Amino acid sequence: MAAIITLTSDFGPASPYVAQMKGVILSICREATLIDLSHGVRPQNIREGAVILADAAPRFPSGTLHVAVVDPGVGTARRIVYVEIGAQRYLAPDNGLLSLLSSQERPKQIRALENSQYWLVKQSATFQGRDILAPAAAHLANGLDPNQLGPPRDELVTLDWPQPRKVARGLAGEVLYVDSFGNIISNITREQLAALGSPASLSIEVAGRKLRGLVVSYGAAMTGECVALLDSQGRLEIAVVEGNAARDLSVKSGEPVLVATRR
Amino acid sequence: MAAIITLTSDFGPASPYVAQMKGVILSICREATLIDLSHGVRPQNIREGAVILADAAPRFPSGTLHVAVVDPGVGTARRIVYVEIGAQRYLAPDNGLLSLLSSQERPKQIRALENSQYWLVKQSATFQGRDILAPAAAHLANGLDPNQLGPPRDELVTLDWPQPRKVARGLAGEVLYVDSFGNIISNITREQLAALGSPASLSIEVAGRKLRGLVVSYGAAMTGECVALLDSQGRLEIAVVEGNAARDLSVKSGEPVLVATRR
Amino acid sequence: MAAIITLTSDFGPASPYVAQMKGVILSICREATLIDLSHGVRPQNIREGAVILADAAPRFPSGTLHVAVVDPGVGTARRIVYVEIGAQRYLAPDNGLLSLLSSQERPKQIRALENSQYWLVKQSATFQGRDILAPAAAHLANGLDPNQLGPPRDELVTLDWPQPRKVARGLAGEVLYVDSFGNIISNITREQLAALGSPASLSIEVAGRKLRGLVVSYGAAMTGECVALLDSQGRLEIAVVEGNAARDLSVKSGEPVLVATRR
Repeated sequence: MAAIITLTSDFGPASPYVAQMKGVILSICREATLIDLSHGVRPQNIREGAVILADAAPRFPSGTLHVAVVDPGVGTARRIVYVEIGAQRYLAPDNGLLSLLSSQERPKQIRALENSQYWLVKQSATFQGRDILAPAAAHLANGLDPNQLGPPRDELVTLDWPQPRKVARGLAGEVLYVDSFGNIISNITREQLAALGSPASLSIEVAGRKLRGLVVSYGAAMTGECVALLDSQGRLEIAVVEGNAARDLSVKSGEPVLVATRR
Repeated sequence: MAAIITLTSDFGPASPYVAQMKGVILSICREATLIDLSHGVRPQNIREGAVILADAAPRFPSGTLHVAVVDPGVGTARRIVYVEIGAQRYLAPDNGLLSLLSSQERPKQIRALENSQYWLVKQSATFQGRDILAPAAAHLANGLDPNQLGPPRDELVTLDWPQPRKVARGLAGEVLYVDSFGNIISNITREQLAALGSPASLSIEVAGRKLRGLVVSYGAAMTGECVALLDSQGRLEIAVVEGNAARDLSVKSGEPVLVATRR
Repeated sequence: MAAIITLTSDFGPASPYVAQMKGVILSICREATLIDLSHGVRPQNIREGAVILADAAPRFPSGTLHVAVVDPGVGTARRIVYVEIGAQRYLAPDNGLLSLLSSQERPKQIRALENSQYWLVKQSATFQGRDILAPAAAHLANGLDPNQLGPPRDELVTLDWPQPRKVARGLAGEVLYVDSFGNIISNITREQLAALGSPASLSIEVAGRKLRGLVVSYGAAMTGECVALLDSQGRLEIAVVEGNAARDLSVKSGEPVLVATRR
């Protein structure tokens, strides 16, 4: 059975640009299974794309090819890379989009896409997702040895993914990501919270709002209530039940999230 | 050929949460055919999800598995169920999401998902769509006997789906659903209208707007005109040609729709 | 391997109406590969649908079936047609939706869908995409001879697709299309620009904004800068780097775009 190829971009849901990539892929590898990972990445938001990829890609079968295009530097000197991390394979611009994944597990292989034999013959300067990434993915799905794509590289371009710092009686983390419901996802993990104390003993603060303790799930609180809980990846999340926490608190990625044990 | 699995949710179009469910399914059943039924259900709007499912699911081949996640009570005591209705199979929280379907045709089988053997080993409290529903669907697609999922149940939780009431010279129904074009779909059927009289003899009223007679289709009226017609499921619909009727008339689900024969 | 069927509409991303079409198709041809081309066509915007189809459809493998539903005249006397252009096959209302494609290459065959044997038995007046186009596509995917669909036609309904006119020291074209990023795509081609002079010698004007020269790609300019460049189809494009040019300049389809060589 041919490979699964997922597609991630900031093109917007059901953009015809995504379909152009699918047409190119299917023209080279008719048997590929195509899955949209997400096209709702906020335009040019590499950090958001990196979180979405890190959360979703490892859920796929071994050997799945993940093509990601969040690429404000398209047409400049930035590289396009093929990367193997864990059991998954990635094709993306080397601009930090894979760097949350690579910060969690060291890549087994990195290749720069330089062999134009596997690109579309007729290329544009503005849509390398279609002209380079899509055909390369399709050739890999057909069984091409990744060594043929181009020379090996030692390192990826990486963004800063800060870890929570210890402060008096707690941790200072930050907002990692705001999801499509407006839930505020922090970079503080279940294990880090457990090391501080019981859920009921914790005090959480973000954007001036203080919360006491964690609830188990949204259903444990009232509609409209602002609560802290663990998200589906095991990270500290701040949510408004059946509402939009990021909008209510005017919170964006990078803002401080404080957790402390109460006296 | 392996089963078709459709996915319905309030996650928003192309949400990465949908992709996480797809990754889980394909990891267990590589051959499943995945179809998005809709991810545009308004957040936590169980009634809207119920109408979308009832309209679309029966269009699919016999044996299709429909996984639906509109689940404000995730993590609480509400059950997750496997249900057979007509030729289709469903997996959903037991919160009314399947109750328009079950009001139209009695379920052949209901099972509560209690056998954690078919769930992901590592679970969250906030995303049972990924952790319980997706793997259960994939195991069923692999041929698992539904009896293995958990014990039988007699009844589903049901929402109120009121039928139109007889009034002087007509019927008092209500708005069932507003579609993505802003068309106002009522709960009054073609057959009920026919019993009242000829289309030209009918007077329709919603939100203070009175309409005379039914048009055959949008193309039979002028751009911007507010008209009554039969929707593609055979229900009375109020639409603004090339416009948004629900916005123009400030109409939401549940509001009265009156039909009467004119003197 | 069964045919690929793409779907294009103005139903909005992940509309349940799209899923109804998919259910009908899979009920007739279980093996069809279904691809969303785009469901983000602005409501009733036939011209936009025509551009999206012309850009994306030829990227697909030979023999792909493209079903397109942007159909303000549904239920009126307008025809539904099957059309072969180049290596691709199309099913659409005959309202101009295929006319940019047919202006680029003469159709090899046109058939009016009149043989109701290949339609759903129970039809609505408002959703012929589901009731006529979807089943016809599925029967074709099963190998039906297109001659069975209905009688041949000589011509398609065509919209006006004006070519740029020569003016003093340049060309007067127009805005063809605004993409989902807000990039302004004109009807002036790479070849027409090259005939005027070097990129650096050109002056571009749209909505009162004058630009000097072309950049190679977005990455060659500063964030927020308004630039002219070649789009991924080789047409003159005006963009705001990491911004929305159409919104900033209040530009819509049909507005003049002037290119001249500078003295």
